[in-house]
Amino acid sequence: MIIVMEPNASEEAIARVEAKIRENGLDVHISRGTERTLIGAVGDERKLEPKVFEILPGVERSLHILKPYKLVAREWHHASTTINIGGNIIGGNEVQVIAGPCSVETNEQMRAAAVAVGEAGACLMRGGAFKPRTSPYSFQGKGVEGLSMLKNAAAPLGLPIVTELMDVRMLDTFLEHNVDVIQIGARNMQNFDLLKEVGRVDVPVILKRGLSATINEWLMAAEYIAAGGNHKIIFCERGIRTFETAYRNVLDITAIPVLKRETHLPIIVDPSHAGGKAWMVPALSYAAVAAGADGLLIEVHPSPLDAWCDADQALSPKEFSVLMKTLSGICATVGRSLPQPQKIEIAHSA
Amino acid sequence: MIIVMEPNASEEAIARVEAKIRENGLDVHISRGTERTLIGAVGDERKLEPKVFEILPGVERSLHILKPYKLVAREWHHASTTINIGGNIIGGNEVQVIAGPCSVETNEQMRAAAVAVGEAGACLMRGGAFKPRTSPYSFQGKGVEGLSMLKNAAAPLGLPIVTELMDVRMLDTFLEHNVDVIQIGARNMQNFDLLKEVGRVDVPVILKRGLSATINEWLMAAEYIAAGGNHKIIFCERGIRTFETAYRNVLDITAIPVLKRETHLPIIVDPSHAGGKAWMVPALSYAAVAAGADGLLIEVHPSPLDAWCDADQALSPKEFSVLMKTLSGICATVGRSLPQPQKIEIAHSA
Amino acid sequence: MIIVMEPNASEEAIARVEAKIRENGLDVHISRGTERTLIGAVGDERKLEPKVFEILPGVERSLHILKPYKLVAREWHHASTTINIGGNIIGGNEVQVIAGPCSVETNEQMRAAAVAVGEAGACLMRGGAFKPRTSPYSFQGKGVEGLSMLKNAAAPLGLPIVTELMDVRMLDTFLEHNVDVIQIGARNMQNFDLLKEVGRVDVPVILKRGLSATINEWLMAAEYIAAGGNHKIIFCERGIRTFETAYRNVLDITAIPVLKRETHLPIIVDPSHAGGKAWMVPALSYAAVAAGADGLLIEVHPSPLDAWCDADQALSPKEFSVLMKTLSGICATVGRSLPQPQKIEIAHSA
Amino acid sequence: MIIVMEPNASEEAIARVEAKIRENGLDVHISRGTERTLIGAVGDERKLEPKVFEILPGVERSLHILKPYKLVAREWHHASTTINIGGNIIGGNEVQVIAGPCSVETNEQMRAAAVAVGEAGACLMRGGAFKPRTSPYSFQGKGVEGLSMLKNAAAPLGLPIVTELMDVRMLDTFLEHNVDVIQIGARNMQNFDLLKEVGRVDVPVILKRGLSATINEWLMAAEYIAAGGNHKIIFCERGIRTFETAYRNVLDITAIPVLKRETHLPIIVDPSHAGGKAWMVPALSYAAVAAGADGLLIEVHPSPLDAWCDADQALSPKEFSVLMKTLSGICATVGRSLPQPQKIEIAHSA
Repeated sequence: MIIVMEPNASEEAIARVEAKIRENGLDVHISRGTERTLIGAVGDERKLEPKVFEILPGVERSLHILKPYKLVAREWHHASTTINIGGNIIGGNEVQVIAGPCSVETNEQMRAAAVAVGEAGACLMRGGAFKPRTSPYSFQGKGVEGLSMLKNAAAPLGLPIVTELMDVRMLDTFLEHNVDVIQIGARNMQNFDLLKEVGRVDVPVILKRGLSATINEWLMAAEYIAAGGNHKIIFCERGIRTFETAYRNVLDITAIPVLKRETHLPIIVDPSHAGGKAWMVPALSYAAVAAGADGLLIEVHPSPLDAWCDADQALSPKEFSVLMKTLSGICATVGRSLPQPQKIEIAHSA
Repeated sequence: MIIVMEPNASEEAIARVEAKIRENGLDVHISRGTERTLIGAVGDERKLEPKVFEILPGVERSLHILKPYKLVAREWHHASTTINIGGNIIGGNEVQVIAGPCSVETNEQMRAAAVAVGEAGACLMRGGAFKPRTSPYSFQGKGVEGLSMLKNAAAPLGLPIVTELMDVRMLDTFLEHNVDVIQIGARNMQNFDLLKEVGRVDVPVILKRGLSATINEWLMAAEYIAAGGNHKIIFCERGIRTFETAYRNVLDITAIPVLKRETHLPIIVDPSHAGGKAWMVPALSYAAVAAGADGLLIEVHPSPLDAWCDADQALSPKEFSVLMKTLSGICATVGRSLPQPQKIEIAHSA
Repeated sequence: MIIVMEPNASEEAIARVEAKIRENGLDVHISRGTERTLIGAVGDERKLEPKVFEILPGVERSLHILKPYKLVAREWHHASTTINIGGNIIGGNEVQVIAGPCSVETNEQMRAAAVAVGEAGACLMRGGAFKPRTSPYSFQGKGVEGLSMLKNAAAPLGLPIVTELMDVRMLDTFLEHNVDVIQIGARNMQNFDLLKEVGRVDVPVILKRGLSATINEWLMAAEYIAAGGNHKIIFCERGIRTFETAYRNVLDITAIPVLKRETHLPIIVDPSHAGGKAWMVPALSYAAVAAGADGLLIEVHPSPLDAWCDADQALSPKEFSVLMKTLSGICATVGRSLPQPQKIEIAHSA
Repeated sequence: MIIVMEPNASEEAIARVEAKIRENGLDVHISRGTERTLIGAVGDERKLEPKVFEILPGVERSLHILKPYKLVAREWHHASTTINIGGNIIGGNEVQVIAGPCSVETNEQMRAAAVAVGEAGACLMRGGAFKPRTSPYSFQGKGVEGLSMLKNAAAPLGLPIVTELMDVRMLDTFLEHNVDVIQIGARNMQNFDLLKEVGRVDVPVILKRGLSATINEWLMAAEYIAAGGNHKIIFCERGIRTFETAYRNVLDITAIPVLKRETHLPIIVDPSHAGGKAWMVPALSYAAVAAGADGLLIEVHPSPLDAWCDADQALSPKEFSVLMKTLSGICATVGRSLPQPQKIEIAHSA
């Protein structure tokens, strides 16, 4: 940490800062410039809070030099981490596509969705049983029943399931239903008690970026999970909030190369929530993979016109299938590949 | 709701929209303009989701006309709501100041804080027992023990206590400790399960605005609480996230007159978290009350230099006392008043 | 336009709104709902300002239904516009890459840059003679001399030149120097007098998006140029300002499909200014073209380590050449192509 | 400047950074920590660009320690600057209110406006002759004729005039019309050629903050003016662009105490453009002065219902007069005062 002193800071003020650094077990290095004296804290500054110094007399400001994250940082773990979900590797050479409806509605809808996404080449299935809705009067999801419906639709096709956990009290239920990947939604990215709990289980976690979370806050949220022992963390960029009103969110494509540099963990992209309209999804999907994403999380509904929520952002099976074909070409261009599409036998016999 | 059709929308497309509106039990009103046909849904449009229409062929976009909130809306409840907390009225003519340290640290600190804030004229005391921290390595609060320390310090002086609830599993413990006001922090503003639970109890709730929550989302979060039956909701503006990096947050003063117009519930301001520096707190406090705030939530620490967290934003007892004097003048100018400062007898005999 | 009346609006208030609409030569359509009366203005509402109604008694708010832009709107001009710049077509099937240094420095630097960008396949050359700099103490560009240096370097290789016009008084000088494409920078996107002047000349204009300009404002800025008679307008997305501090700007990739839908004019992307770091440029370039961009504007310097400005965001000739190879694959995947690289004979004989 | 080296930076890389610093005439100070080596550039770092170092091998990032502004900085000019405009002092103990219509329309309107604002206690008059409008189809202002109309209305009452300069070619005309204060609008805050020109004249300048300008950029824009020799600069906060859509801009009240600390120049606030609605103006005005603003810039129209632009944000003379009375109380509470209202003799005889 660097503490920048005010131009006229007294020797006493400098001594006080020095003492406070040493109290915390770090060493001190003083540099007297022409306009400012700088005091460096030498050692593991992660223990120090800059604010503790900014209140001392004569201090102008203090700056962290080291990154505050450690377990998730590529600096401390150079090799990229891969996460194996029922045989599907996320973070490796293959680009994984997770697809399915916004919300679990009926058994028929889920069966049709599973076949559609599996046939087109998705290797994991998504579906929301618990839905975070801005309005208390909107459909809140099928709840526990929805978990079963999702599992029952996906399992026969060999598709691991991904679903959102909102309430910490539901974690055991998720484990009982063999949820393969727990999704932490954007609004819960800094629900620290929830992060701590999923940090204690051995199930991969997709950690969505908060609506206005900085890269640093996002990495620190992952650090919460990792600090609990669970290192199977997948970042998911889903668009950020800006001043623009022409679309729901701005997909932050720059976050992909930046995260790839800062962390060893995989990063996927949710193009459906980012743009908020089905017609934007192909362009955003291609861009995400071209920029280096390890996977996509896409909303596909067997009949978007009838979807119970976010109808306007779901792709139809046919649109999804077309998207997957172009995506395959993008993957090849950037030296990656899509997994081979499954042969869906059960589905065809049904 | 208004559904705007594309310029070349067919009669069939118009008929389909019309049918969908009627299916939902609303009436239809069609207006054919020179460039667009507009279809109005007449009735309680709150049941309709605009997205359901935007996916239909020939639809350009759809717009809500009515506000989505009802229980918290001034439109439906003209008189301002006042909330009585141990005899202190929030939302009436008096401006209430809630003060105390960022986090509960020790019994001595809390006792000194209670005396300081009470003597200067604060009528409620704040203190964090559970702290939401960006880093898992930072001090996370004293936990349940902190609740007792806060209550023990505040009760002898007749100060009701305000403290943050982060984890839904802790609600019963909060009730057992007779927490007088439950604070929902900015990061949990859309933790819908938590909102539902505090909606079921009969304890006033301070609902902080999310870091990048719109006024509409904030009102809808309150609607979640109100829908559960708890109408004792106090909004708290605490600064929003913008592009500016010179200070932590931008205090959104405009939210005060806008909320006063939109809702019948009280609104207070947290100037300490907004600016992030103690020296900004007086200016922001005066501005907030001048703009119409019903109260303030201010960090005061008996010895800011020794505070365990957010040291740079806490006022000392003396600074707080000076602030209260000027604030009293501001109140008078805008036709309000501060409550009479307490005589703190127990404190002086201690 | 729709004018939404307050719940208790009087008949007199409704009549007054009606009169004001008719005064402006539009027709009126009234729809009485259960909670609100809506008044529609039927006709070309572009003449009306919503604000004029919002001040009338009994009016809650008023909304534009039609888009405010017309000349640049795809709605009024369905076919995509292509712009021919010295034989290079922007907005057609080929993806055009414009490359060159941030600022014109020396004749040697410019000659080396021209060869480098031409050999790698760029078809136009960029270079700044007038530089908008945040600090008055930073290098402000070579000025008029720089225009000649740029033209002299690019012309022998058949590369049309692109350079920024900041000061309206310099327009004639730009024309005298045969600038092939005039660039309007982000900070001048709403310098309306400058827009009006470039609207009067017959030279293609690259209109960069303002740092925090909405899509709507950007289209309206182009409408200023088009209204003057110059329809050769190329939009350039260069990143927007958000709360994120880990990189300079957030490249708004979603703007590409949205602009493609809203306007018939071409859109290119500047990945260099968006991210602000050379190592991010390839990922952002691939993403931009994958998302549908018609071209790229990339900073390339013969020796980035020696660049006089923005050194950290310029690609070296070798890095640029590698980028172009992958880009060619991305183009093919999305059904487009890069132009055939030039044979640079003059350069080799030099 | 501090250059932070990567963990594994070689001695050669360190030597190269050191050499580059010395080349620029500064001294070097090296600090070897446990995880990073830091290299300090000792001397006037304002000449150095951080980017020049970030491209060197082994460099992680580089940070400015000193503020980039000097002429406008309080650090270099401790006493607050006051600016005398026809006897009205801005930046002293008195709070100055500048009022008048958004745009100059007719002689009658201007005369009525002048009387209204003068009687209520405004000491300067505003009015737009050149209007920056988002749409080319909106009223663009009366132009040069408007300057005369404004002067003719204000002069008999002894009110200096404030009006916006958009086009650098109009500066001489402004001087010929004896414009007392030149306003630089938000959209032109980084129109550097315009800033340079107004830096060469001896007329006070109101510099509005750009829609998304940081405090630092705003101060640097003022530095452009000051570097030209004109030190009569008045900052004007007018709301910033954020994600919020419930109001036009967010008035950034925190900027007031921060600017007061960073610069010796006065700061005023425009509450009319910030909120965008007349009913918000009083609350925002009181907040601005309570937070320390040196003045206000308020839109007042003799008949808002008939205003040609921004009708919904103009106060009527009566509303303005009421505002001024409360404002006077706010001033007194924070130890300041409003000037004595003028006796408007000419007006009454008219």
